[in-house]
Amino acid sequence: MSVLTIERKVLEKNDIIAAANRKLLQSHNLYSINLVSSPGSGKTSLVERTIAACQNKIRIGVIEGDIQTDLDARRVDALGVAVVQIVTHGACHLEAALIGDSLKQLDLPHLELLIIENVGNLVCPSGYDLGENVKVVVVSTTEGDDKPLKYPAMFRNASALIINKIDLLPYLNSSVDDMEKNALSINPALRVFRTSCTSGEGIEEWCEWLQSQISKK
Amino acid sequence: MSVLTIERKVLEKNDIIAAANRKLLQSHNLYSINLVSSPGSGKTSLVERTIAACQNKIRIGVIEGDIQTDLDARRVDALGVAVVQIVTHGACHLEAALIGDSLKQLDLPHLELLIIENVGNLVCPSGYDLGENVKVVVVSTTEGDDKPLKYPAMFRNASALIINKIDLLPYLNSSVDDMEKNALSINPALRVFRTSCTSGEGIEEWCEWLQSQISKK
Repeated sequence: MSVLTIERKVLEKNDIIAAANRKLLQSHNLYSINLVSSPGSGKTSLVERTIAACQNKIRIGVIEGDIQTDLDARRVDALGVAVVQIVTHGACHLEAALIGDSLKQLDLPHLELLIIENVGNLVCPSGYDLGENVKVVVVSTTEGDDKPLKYPAMFRNASALIINKIDLLPYLNSSVDDMEKNALSINPALRVFRTSCTSGEGIEEWCEWLQSQISKK
Repeated sequence: MSVLTIERKVLEKNDIIAAANRKLLQSHNLYSINLVSSPGSGKTSLVERTIAACQNKIRIGVIEGDIQTDLDARRVDALGVAVVQIVTHGACHLEAALIGDSLKQLDLPHLELLIIENVGNLVCPSGYDLGENVKVVVVSTTEGDDKPLKYPAMFRNASALIINKIDLLPYLNSSVDDMEKNALSINPALRVFRTSCTSGEGIEEWCEWLQSQISKK
């Protein structure tokens, strides 16, 4: 039995549980996104901004994935939104079974949007279906415009791209146009947003898109 | 046979090859660092700055690890330094066997410092010994001061910490003092440097430390 065989079995088992999660979420007419990025791209700030902008229009629940600490869940909890913290204790990505357990802690019939914030890792979470409707990859301008070329799997598997921290562009040698072009060369179907969670720029457009996706369901 | 057993065997095999790499490097009196960080923290810029600052004093070789592309190796090659590019084709970290193969491509007796730039991933590379003298973790100010608490393994396993992009501090809500304090709470023995690869601040101190480590060997 080779390591590759084991890995395939782990992914197959994950896919079965992800399908069950998807069925459960669909039965509650609940739209879900899996937010993925490097550490420090601004996923939690984006979750905070999204809640602030949409809370009166959309009923939101959040699952926070972290290797250690419940710092992110506390930030979300402070905004009065239902949140479950998953601590992976070293594991580099969320798996469907962890999401399945977390869904039991949420009042699903009451929710319209579930935001899953994955562990900060631009590589490993790309291969793990959690049962979400779409993966949304966040990349910050400070990471450099070559990142889509260097970490293509995440951009290939996502439906939307958020280029965050555009407020810092005047101080960087990095081009947001090149970053977008590089991402679209990997996945031309990506819906791209440019945001700043500091200034709030672009958040409205992102929230309108979320609302349109929820209405479409 | 469980997945955990397989993982342990993979790590055991890696450790054996890492020990052989270490022996080979020591036999050439060659000091080596394993640069680890999130994507976009500035590892390659740091390599470029280090080469520019030390090239006349230290004979440097570089191994670049990337999931895709040889963009980084081209940047290093442009500076006239011997460089080997490893493309992992999806794998989220470097392993000792890849370094062993790369060492065959370098003129080891001629070198004093080997810089290994790992895949951008603040999680997975922490568990893989490559045979290096020390791991050096790079974190950029833009990633937020809580990162050492959220990704502790990398900070625990490193000997030095480079807090990069300090030129951006005036535009951030993040505290470099808190970042350092959080890192030292995980690993009090960390040697900390604050750098900007844009302005060059802190690079001299970092290079002096490298030189002192090479002399100590």
